[in-house]
Amino acid sequence: MIHNFNAGPSILPKEVFEEASRAILNFNETGLSILEFGHRTPMFESVVSEAMDLVRELMQLDGNKEVMFLHGGASTQFFQVPMNFLSKDKTAAYLDGGVWGSKAIKEAKLFGNVEVVASSKDRNYSYIPTGYTLPDNAAYFHYTTNNTIEGTQMQGIPSSSVPLIADMSSDILSCGMDFNRFSFIYAGAQKNIGAAGVNLVVADKDFLATGNTAIPSMMDYRQHVANGSMLNTPPVFAIYVCLLTLRWLKKIGGIPAIEKINEQKADLLYSTLASLPMFNLPVPAQDRSKMNAVFTMHDPALEKLFLTRCEEEGMVGIKGHRSVGGFRVSMYNAMPLSSVVDITDLIKDFANKHA
Amino acid sequence: MIHNFNAGPSILPKEVFEEASRAILNFNETGLSILEFGHRTPMFESVVSEAMDLVRELMQLDGNKEVMFLHGGASTQFFQVPMNFLSKDKTAAYLDGGVWGSKAIKEAKLFGNVEVVASSKDRNYSYIPTGYTLPDNAAYFHYTTNNTIEGTQMQGIPSSSVPLIADMSSDILSCGMDFNRFSFIYAGAQKNIGAAGVNLVVADKDFLATGNTAIPSMMDYRQHVANGSMLNTPPVFAIYVCLLTLRWLKKIGGIPAIEKINEQKADLLYSTLASLPMFNLPVPAQDRSKMNAVFTMHDPALEKLFLTRCEEEGMVGIKGHRSVGGFRVSMYNAMPLSSVVDITDLIKDFANKHA
Repeated sequence: MIHNFNAGPSILPKEVFEEASRAILNFNETGLSILEFGHRTPMFESVVSEAMDLVRELMQLDGNKEVMFLHGGASTQFFQVPMNFLSKDKTAAYLDGGVWGSKAIKEAKLFGNVEVVASSKDRNYSYIPTGYTLPDNAAYFHYTTNNTIEGTQMQGIPSSSVPLIADMSSDILSCGMDFNRFSFIYAGAQKNIGAAGVNLVVADKDFLATGNTAIPSMMDYRQHVANGSMLNTPPVFAIYVCLLTLRWLKKIGGIPAIEKINEQKADLLYSTLASLPMFNLPVPAQDRSKMNAVFTMHDPALEKLFLTRCEEEGMVGIKGHRSVGGFRVSMYNAMPLSSVVDITDLIKDFANKHA
Repeated sequence: MIHNFNAGPSILPKEVFEEASRAILNFNETGLSILEFGHRTPMFESVVSEAMDLVRELMQLDGNKEVMFLHGGASTQFFQVPMNFLSKDKTAAYLDGGVWGSKAIKEAKLFGNVEVVASSKDRNYSYIPTGYTLPDNAAYFHYTTNNTIEGTQMQGIPSSSVPLIADMSSDILSCGMDFNRFSFIYAGAQKNIGAAGVNLVVADKDFLATGNTAIPSMMDYRQHVANGSMLNTPPVFAIYVCLLTLRWLKKIGGIPAIEKINEQKADLLYSTLASLPMFNLPVPAQDRSKMNAVFTMHDPALEKLFLTRCEEEGMVGIKGHRSVGGFRVSMYNAMPLSSVVDITDLIKDFANKHA
């Protein structure tokens, strides 16, 4: 039994793997592989439209929202967002809450003025900054809802009079929130939505209308909307995997159901770690991510033993990011509670043996 | 039996589908799906490096070439190329030889001056323009080697004193040529290389060094090279399918072997069509594509009957592009000769019955 705690690409539901595997041999009983299937066919168009509809339904989007599936990953959005919504005579507000947010800031500076309203860089992004004010005249305010590397997660939505833009790559669809308060949401698929190579974008129609023109066609969100995410050949298979994952999420009860499970998983893991003096949780309790739990051990020699033990027992992907060290246990939507039970049992047993 | 003559996404070898399908359940006996597999693992790094090595070997690239696998499709390259290599004080030469080339021209104009050295737009791009001269001072000369929609294909490489850039999306790896004469080659994967959602780029190191700086990281070829095509999470599965297809091509004898088969297929189809007065070949013989054969019928009423007959016999994807009409039979590398034999038999039988 392998437990895949990878931070991304990461675990997806088993039935998604099974159906995707079948579709590569025979898509919808057509006798053709999904990999050789024309994207401008009614059958693939219905894949895209069903996936879009499921996003609308699961996120409870209002009628003013557009849904897109675009090539690339969040890193593509880091520059595509300011290319569309920033310019030399405008200022965008950014929260510098983690490595990925800081990369988004770097790209935005190529297109206009950036005001970093707050930063947690002083303590290696180990907490969520608070107490900042947003400039009234900002073109938008950009932040990362969940910091995959540092294991921090924003609680709630900041109150803002300027358009909100969020990178939700690593916690989208994992917990309820009023998604309609955002002008623009993007997420690389390879955590909670599907396979690597596609972005989900949810954008407000009115906000899209304020975007820059005279930008490359493939970068222009409005052109993607007008073409139903088929401005060019889309990442067909990656979108299909999104559809399968979205269907699974709906089937198990949508965001309310998965949120409960995600809370159980995170509570179990964090409370176990907090109860054992051997382990250290660098993130303050109120900022801890329910998707990526980051922890270290006070004794570096034990860290090596712990990693070996995890590997021996099929716990994959728990090594922390090189910028943080220690360990990271990612518990995305598709991660069953039983796997978190297994790793907490291992943690307790390890702590007992090496106390 | 289904014959998939789709123009793209298009047929891939059966063994590629079979191995890709298995890898979605269990990648390399790891017990994990390729869809949940971390890209920064030695096993996936070896997927990327083997795919790059196979490209070098199959295309017989010299040591001055870099190979990249990048997000998106050829449409992404339409603007990424000029973003890197054109500017307001420079001029790029473009050949306007088809719908896709004209789209590349449109994107390039956003970044600098474009000189269209020749165009076949006057006759709906039904031929390859000749007799043009290239400006000595051009930053580069861009053309499309094979025009998927119009069924035309460049024969040989134009002599040029300026850096050559080619969009080879629909005929790469299908016939031998001195790929080292190009400064920059790109190709969307979904015809001869793999699945949709990834580009193959082959670029000259010296040429890359002349590129613009201060462009978005994800658009900067040099950053992709420096990071081994893992600047961000790459389209993992799409790259894996490329590897499988490249392995297949090597196994059957590489470009020399596939070129012979491609010539047999094209000769058979074109000679059959040319022998039947019912059919019309709009492209002059010397410009006909070996990948995409375009033809019409003199009697529009018969076209409908022909399409129905093809559908009845499992011939998929033969309807011509809406801008050209009639029919298009795509015969990419993975299309077996036997399928072309079957469709020519059908064509002859249809002509007999309706003569």
